[in-house]
Amino acid sequence: MIIVLKRDATQEEVDHIIASIQEWGLEADISRGKEQTVIGILGDESVARNKPLEAFPGVDHVMQVQKPYKRASAEFKAEPTKIVIPPVNSKGREIVIGGEEIVVSAGPCSVEGRDMLVEIATKAKAAGAGILRGGAFKPRSSPYSFQGLGVDGVRFLTDVRAELGMPIVTEVMDTRDVELIEEYSDIIQVGARNMQNFSLLKVLGGTDKPILLKRGLSNTIEELLMSAEYIMNSGNDRIILCERGIRTFETYTRNTLDLSAVAVIKNESHLPVMIDPSHGTGIRALIEPMARAGIAAGADALMIEVHNNPEEAFSDGPQSLLPEDFAKLMQGLEKVAGAVNRRIGGR
Amino acid sequence: MIIVLKRDATQEEVDHIIASIQEWGLEADISRGKEQTVIGILGDESVARNKPLEAFPGVDHVMQVQKPYKRASAEFKAEPTKIVIPPVNSKGREIVIGGEEIVVSAGPCSVEGRDMLVEIATKAKAAGAGILRGGAFKPRSSPYSFQGLGVDGVRFLTDVRAELGMPIVTEVMDTRDVELIEEYSDIIQVGARNMQNFSLLKVLGGTDKPILLKRGLSNTIEELLMSAEYIMNSGNDRIILCERGIRTFETYTRNTLDLSAVAVIKNESHLPVMIDPSHGTGIRALIEPMARAGIAAGADALMIEVHNNPEEAFSDGPQSLLPEDFAKLMQGLEKVAGAVNRRIGGR
Amino acid sequence: MIIVLKRDATQEEVDHIIASIQEWGLEADISRGKEQTVIGILGDESVARNKPLEAFPGVDHVMQVQKPYKRASAEFKAEPTKIVIPPVNSKGREIVIGGEEIVVSAGPCSVEGRDMLVEIATKAKAAGAGILRGGAFKPRSSPYSFQGLGVDGVRFLTDVRAELGMPIVTEVMDTRDVELIEEYSDIIQVGARNMQNFSLLKVLGGTDKPILLKRGLSNTIEELLMSAEYIMNSGNDRIILCERGIRTFETYTRNTLDLSAVAVIKNESHLPVMIDPSHGTGIRALIEPMARAGIAAGADALMIEVHNNPEEAFSDGPQSLLPEDFAKLMQGLEKVAGAVNRRIGGR
Amino acid sequence: MIIVLKRDATQEEVDHIIASIQEWGLEADISRGKEQTVIGILGDESVARNKPLEAFPGVDHVMQVQKPYKRASAEFKAEPTKIVIPPVNSKGREIVIGGEEIVVSAGPCSVEGRDMLVEIATKAKAAGAGILRGGAFKPRSSPYSFQGLGVDGVRFLTDVRAELGMPIVTEVMDTRDVELIEEYSDIIQVGARNMQNFSLLKVLGGTDKPILLKRGLSNTIEELLMSAEYIMNSGNDRIILCERGIRTFETYTRNTLDLSAVAVIKNESHLPVMIDPSHGTGIRALIEPMARAGIAAGADALMIEVHNNPEEAFSDGPQSLLPEDFAKLMQGLEKVAGAVNRRIGGR
Repeated sequence: MIIVLKRDATQEEVDHIIASIQEWGLEADISRGKEQTVIGILGDESVARNKPLEAFPGVDHVMQVQKPYKRASAEFKAEPTKIVIPPVNSKGREIVIGGEEIVVSAGPCSVEGRDMLVEIATKAKAAGAGILRGGAFKPRSSPYSFQGLGVDGVRFLTDVRAELGMPIVTEVMDTRDVELIEEYSDIIQVGARNMQNFSLLKVLGGTDKPILLKRGLSNTIEELLMSAEYIMNSGNDRIILCERGIRTFETYTRNTLDLSAVAVIKNESHLPVMIDPSHGTGIRALIEPMARAGIAAGADALMIEVHNNPEEAFSDGPQSLLPEDFAKLMQGLEKVAGAVNRRIGGR
Repeated sequence: MIIVLKRDATQEEVDHIIASIQEWGLEADISRGKEQTVIGILGDESVARNKPLEAFPGVDHVMQVQKPYKRASAEFKAEPTKIVIPPVNSKGREIVIGGEEIVVSAGPCSVEGRDMLVEIATKAKAAGAGILRGGAFKPRSSPYSFQGLGVDGVRFLTDVRAELGMPIVTEVMDTRDVELIEEYSDIIQVGARNMQNFSLLKVLGGTDKPILLKRGLSNTIEELLMSAEYIMNSGNDRIILCERGIRTFETYTRNTLDLSAVAVIKNESHLPVMIDPSHGTGIRALIEPMARAGIAAGADALMIEVHNNPEEAFSDGPQSLLPEDFAKLMQGLEKVAGAVNRRIGGR
Repeated sequence: MIIVLKRDATQEEVDHIIASIQEWGLEADISRGKEQTVIGILGDESVARNKPLEAFPGVDHVMQVQKPYKRASAEFKAEPTKIVIPPVNSKGREIVIGGEEIVVSAGPCSVEGRDMLVEIATKAKAAGAGILRGGAFKPRSSPYSFQGLGVDGVRFLTDVRAELGMPIVTEVMDTRDVELIEEYSDIIQVGARNMQNFSLLKVLGGTDKPILLKRGLSNTIEELLMSAEYIMNSGNDRIILCERGIRTFETYTRNTLDLSAVAVIKNESHLPVMIDPSHGTGIRALIEPMARAGIAAGADALMIEVHNNPEEAFSDGPQSLLPEDFAKLMQGLEKVAGAVNRRIGGR
Repeated sequence: MIIVLKRDATQEEVDHIIASIQEWGLEADISRGKEQTVIGILGDESVARNKPLEAFPGVDHVMQVQKPYKRASAEFKAEPTKIVIPPVNSKGREIVIGGEEIVVSAGPCSVEGRDMLVEIATKAKAAGAGILRGGAFKPRSSPYSFQGLGVDGVRFLTDVRAELGMPIVTEVMDTRDVELIEEYSDIIQVGARNMQNFSLLKVLGGTDKPILLKRGLSNTIEELLMSAEYIMNSGNDRIILCERGIRTFETYTRNTLDLSAVAVIKNESHLPVMIDPSHGTGIRALIEPMARAGIAAGADALMIEVHNNPEEAFSDGPQSLLPEDFAKLMQGLEKVAGAVNRRIGGR
């Protein structure tokens, strides 16, 4: 950590800062430039980071040198993390996220009933999807919108899971529901709006299911890794990070899918990365090019919204693919995956 | 709601859209232009808003005409809402947020102990603060940062509340803590990161304490009003909206305090508005000018971080004012309040 | 165009609006809903767009139905535009941007001298680059930074152009320099900071060289197309649009490369699209994954900064590839191009 | 400047970096921490800033310690700069921007003719406006929009200037027009879209008229100061900085007026600051609260669009005030100015 002093900092102020640093068990190294004096703090920066250094008289500003995340960092664990989802039953197979295979999770935005779910899941599986997605508890910006089927939705998901031998992923929005979702879902999803719901993250650290952690609409990549750190620090290190679009000034797309985040995370962390081009663009015609681009950028997994009747979808109809369009998409993805020495799982 | 059709939409597609609209109990009005055909939906837009119209063949895009919020809107209730906080005890007085008086809430970012809280609260009250703020449960982006004293923090707050006759506001982060905070706090705060924690909002709708709802870092004013709508729709319409800075590309300030939001909310809603220049700027030297500007823009209340020893603050030290600087700030605010025909409460 | 009226708009106000619309030679279509009344304007929206409709009493707001660009739109010209660069001399070949071949433009950020340019260009060409890039007039945010060699830089570029038979692209920043750049450069580049330098765009409309128009850091895709429209409306319709990163809250990358813009432009326009992953990320390690992703997303061309001695580069050293790394990048791109039925030109 | 090394940087790499720093005539100071090693560069950072340090092997990243601007900085000149506009003729008075008086510039977005200009200017002057604004060359995002009257517009401005004894400000968009605008206008305006048109800035550095430099829609405050630095470095240090709204995700307002920029500039620079609430909000009803807030935040000047017939304005009608509304606004501003010990000039 580097402390940049004010030009008019007094010797007394400098002494006080250095004494404080030493009191915290750290070493201080002072560089007096002609124009500016800086103090470097040697040792574990995490101690100093919790001190309000900018509140000390004589301090102009403070710059961090070390990354604030540890367990999530590539330094902590050089080898990429592989998340293994064991076979659901005898009809299923083991799924590995973060390996050579690119895993595709597909399904409706909301679980709307049993029949639609069976139909969509059957077709998605046939097209190569490895995981069934579907929302039972739905975060909606309006209280007048469909809020999800709740427990019934979870029941439909587990029925189809058993029937098709297909692992499922569904979102949890409330600490009170974690136990339920942990019991029935193969992967627990944290939605973008809850990426910094720290109470929820801590509880999820106590579960033993993999966590799909979506990047918040206005959260930096560093903050995403810090949220992963919360879960890891509470005991669960099986985390999949998901880029699903950030909020920018551009209004044509619903969000701006930040594919450079994939490459950044690959440099900074050992955790696998998923891309969600459905929410990331909000426009059906953009899903295929962005799915291809996501794979080319190095993503380990994809999440795609598929609906058998988008016109009657309770949510996200306009950005859902028909099962037959999903099947075509998967064919195209296979070639791109091959070009970067990966393959689409299940195909 | 206006449906803009694709240029090559067929008559069959148009008929199908119109039939669907009529099925939903709404009326359709078609305008055929030379270049583009649009269908207007007459009647309550909230029905159509839940239909995936953009998923219908032939539809190019859909534009909303009506505002999605109702109870929070100025149309629903023309008269400004006043939030009345009854006197805490015989040492206290009634506080009204949204009236002529501008109410100032002051206190430390985190409750760190009993003594510091008594000292800060006593001095803040003497300077004119009407409400004591202090965090017991703290949302921190790092799991390695101080997470708040929790229940102990609440106890210190209630002690000081009784001692000084000063109402308190503190944040709730978890649905499981709502009951506790509701019992002890005069106002329940929803932090920026939880503005779209819809589970929490619904539970808060069932409480009978006023809610201080902070705008999320990347949330639009409309989304803020929709989150208020969630709480109102669940039964609690005593809500104070708080602008505390949004996330932009500017890096000099911690956030960009969007003061135009004050004026927008005053036009669109009946709810009172608070400004938080401490979090909104993150820089001590900017708090005074932004507090003044907030009042000039029409804010009904302010929230200011005050700490008796910023150098040892567990959080937000650099943006905390010393009690004596807070007292000076309050003097300056009085004049600006007078210029817009308001006065600073408690002075 | 749709005019949404205020709820309390009077009949007199409505009549006045309709009369004005008819005076402008357009037709008005009124839809009276229970909650809101809207007026649709039929006919060419471009007339109404220049009228301050929101300034009329009784108007709440105005929504545009038609796209504001014409010549740049896919409706205007269904077939993709191909930009043909004729062979420079007998050593060169014809380059087509917007065809099956993906064209790669490579070279240093700034032209720093003749020798470095020859070396870089020779190696880039050998690796498959079709066009040599290099800045002679440099837009730098600091007046104390290297501002480019100016006319000397152009001379070096034209020397190397002739020597290698390689077409060149260089930036123009000033209307007074257009004639010079037009004479010597095969493609004229408009930098991101000048995307809305309308004086410059109009002058470029009078040239007969292709224009490489870079998207501004905070400009929407629609505004990019409108800037292309400026050039086209002034007589030059040979335009290549370039996505080079937009400004967001994310600070890890220099900019956020918006690859969805590629797919959006492909839907909305007939113009070819280039991607600049060097400026788009500002980080050497991210160039390869983003170049791959750009091709997978459908880009027609790439621009990559290459320098033979990044440590001594006058600008953008940290994001420049060494010629040997560029050669490796090109090999990898070939496979991705093949996966989307394209090929890398020159290889 | 601080160079943070990679964890695996070799001694050879470190030696090479230090040798290079010394070659540039600077001193290097190395701090070896347990986890990370950093090198501090002592001496004038501007030399090192032009070296591509991040391109050196072993370097992780580089952090700047000193501000990149000099002449624009508060360190360079402690006393606030006052821009003096001498009386236009015997009917006029001296105007000082940056003194006790808050100067208001008012007038139409575009000069549309002589009569409208006389009427607006007469009424604006009567209400207390000190400077007449009006666009002759207009930057418009569409080539199909009114582009300004050009030279005729300038002529109308100078006529009214002489008639009323009122100094004028008008925008220059092209280096070729600088001579014309310099001759006739009292202040030369650089629009937001040209804030980084460095060719234009350099030419303006050679004029001897004050420059009104508007902040670009996506430019940081530091970049604004760097653009001022360009002009100052070319010889003209009479600059007024103008905050006119930045581009964010919020869509209710046209832009987000960043009032904290006023306070930041007051801390970092000696240059006076103007606020433009008309462009900053784009909504008539928000101009008054934002103008008041701007003054409370410390602005030295305001720019307000006034039109006598907004319904027929060629541009920006919806955000223009009627002369009578402008007069009312000015009355309200007087009280706020008094509260911060300023007064509105001309009243």
